[in-house]
Amino acid sequence: MFQTVAIVGATGAVGHEFISLIEQRGWQVDRYVLLASARSAGCTVRMLGHDRAVEELTESSFDGVDLALFSAGGGISKQFAPRAVAAGAVVVDNSSAFRMDPEVPLVVPEINPADAHRHRGIIANPNCSTIIMVIPVWPLHRANPVKRIVVSTYQSASGAGMRAMEELQTQTREVLDGKPAKPRVFPFQLAFNLFCHNSPIDETGYNAEEVKMIRETWKIFHDDTIGVTATCVRVPVLRAHSEAVNLTFENPITPDEVREILSKAPGVRVVDRLDPQHFPMPIEAGGIDEVLVGRIRQDISQPGSRGIDLFISGDQLRKGAALNAVQIAELLV
Amino acid sequence: MFQTVAIVGATGAVGHEFISLIEQRGWQVDRYVLLASARSAGCTVRMLGHDRAVEELTESSFDGVDLALFSAGGGISKQFAPRAVAAGAVVVDNSSAFRMDPEVPLVVPEINPADAHRHRGIIANPNCSTIIMVIPVWPLHRANPVKRIVVSTYQSASGAGMRAMEELQTQTREVLDGKPAKPRVFPFQLAFNLFCHNSPIDETGYNAEEVKMIRETWKIFHDDTIGVTATCVRVPVLRAHSEAVNLTFENPITPDEVREILSKAPGVRVVDRLDPQHFPMPIEAGGIDEVLVGRIRQDISQPGSRGIDLFISGDQLRKGAALNAVQIAELLV
Repeated sequence: MFQTVAIVGATGAVGHEFISLIEQRGWQVDRYVLLASARSAGCTVRMLGHDRAVEELTESSFDGVDLALFSAGGGISKQFAPRAVAAGAVVVDNSSAFRMDPEVPLVVPEINPADAHRHRGIIANPNCSTIIMVIPVWPLHRANPVKRIVVSTYQSASGAGMRAMEELQTQTREVLDGKPAKPRVFPFQLAFNLFCHNSPIDETGYNAEEVKMIRETWKIFHDDTIGVTATCVRVPVLRAHSEAVNLTFENPITPDEVREILSKAPGVRVVDRLDPQHFPMPIEAGGIDEVLVGRIRQDISQPGSRGIDLFISGDQLRKGAALNAVQIAELLV
Repeated sequence: MFQTVAIVGATGAVGHEFISLIEQRGWQVDRYVLLASARSAGCTVRMLGHDRAVEELTESSFDGVDLALFSAGGGISKQFAPRAVAAGAVVVDNSSAFRMDPEVPLVVPEINPADAHRHRGIIANPNCSTIIMVIPVWPLHRANPVKRIVVSTYQSASGAGMRAMEELQTQTREVLDGKPAKPRVFPFQLAFNLFCHNSPIDETGYNAEEVKMIRETWKIFHDDTIGVTATCVRVPVLRAHSEAVNLTFENPITPDEVREILSKAPGVRVVDRLDPQHFPMPIEAGGIDEVLVGRIRQDISQPGSRGIDLFISGDQLRKGAALNAVQIAELLV
């Protein structure tokens, strides 16, 4: 399928998932180039039964590479993705560096696969919170246009990387032992606490994570008339993101119709049992490919049966990042 | 102010806060009667510098009592509150037993203090999530009628009592030690997880906690035309509840107007700093009287500048329970 695949950020949380997914999906590739910063170069990473050396990312890392999966932050993508393209590779970039570039497709394979083929070397992978939300919203939007989305997120530590996940565990133990919490990766204590997503806030008052959920939804759906507002919150969960999603549709819609559509939707698993209660939870969404969707109910605050409330959980590292990027790459074969 | 005050549920999490607030506020009372179930009777509780015996709650516990603060669950309130009233006491009840009874006032002192004086022996204290939400929403509603509320909650373990708080701590240590989580108080693991509030779900698909937020808001505001939808979620936080609140107003409103109104509103503390970012967090809301409000911004999904987004945190045990009840009692003096 590909001859030489580079993974940029091979020692990170998403890099780890890239490797695991490539193994599971049985990619036929001649050679893998595992890349990381100078700090991690020299480490070995277990892949396909072998310990493989991680090389330092440099300008010549992409010679002979035909696919490069990037997940090492926006700065690295901005600097090195054009080099990879110049060397002849297609880049699937997990950072926010190119997502809103009109020349770069932003793709969720279940939604806008055709966009992937319009690339000029780089295809952007959407933000994790966006992907997890649009996976169930898209099939509903196709059946009955969504006019407005109000979303509140419950985002796990994994969205900030492996060091953030470690900090949550270490810090939680410190707090249980009566020691003061010492935040390093995050600006505030996350153990037994939560805080608004700490990305920069623009003049509208929205933070960058919220702006991503709004603008990326428009770009993926090819529709910037949908009203979207988001409140993004970090919670003391390790790896799956959850979201409370309130939808307003153009036409009346019932919970049964929603359940029927979602039960057939790709990438969705309906978890909506009343007795005993069983709804989406991050500990059950972690490590699986589907986004869990439940609490499907008519929003009684909206007239004319045009509102639906949902609660969803999806693995931030898989469908929210590595899996979606791997699926994009598979579209190209 | 009162001659004899009974505290029903004196050994519970809210009971503990009743005692702490009465001490802080310097109530002048001749005698306290500390009551609990047979299981806790015989314990001592520290109050006003003395270890005081906790007595078993019986039908004769209220002889001579003129104020009874109840926080021992709906079943106990249903059984014993009428006994306390028959004995001549006024009951301020923290359970849901009487909240929607049309003959029982449901009071937040900052909002509808006059209702307290219409009691026939029992005054109900609203649900914690409701109180924390309506404290900032009411002054905005008075300035510009609120037409619709979409709220997602981030509720702490304390809402399920002291044993639930202990379970979160014990279970978190077990999970960190690689042991399986054993939920007892909650139906699911709460450590590093979250789940939809596990109160019973009715035929509309809303759970009882969500229904409380909707109906109690209508009763406290004397206005059942406000559209309210809620998604209530339990998160691994110890004691303060947070809420993402999306508001639709009748007339245009700006974030500056909201900030101006909230900066003067009783029971509210605006925490809304951009640089460095500082917004409401449960670890800062715990143990204080005010509800923290921040992330005040124009909701860009709504036309005509009629939408506002907020994020709030409030101590579930204080303003969400004991403090509000104590304030109701003070209205009666």
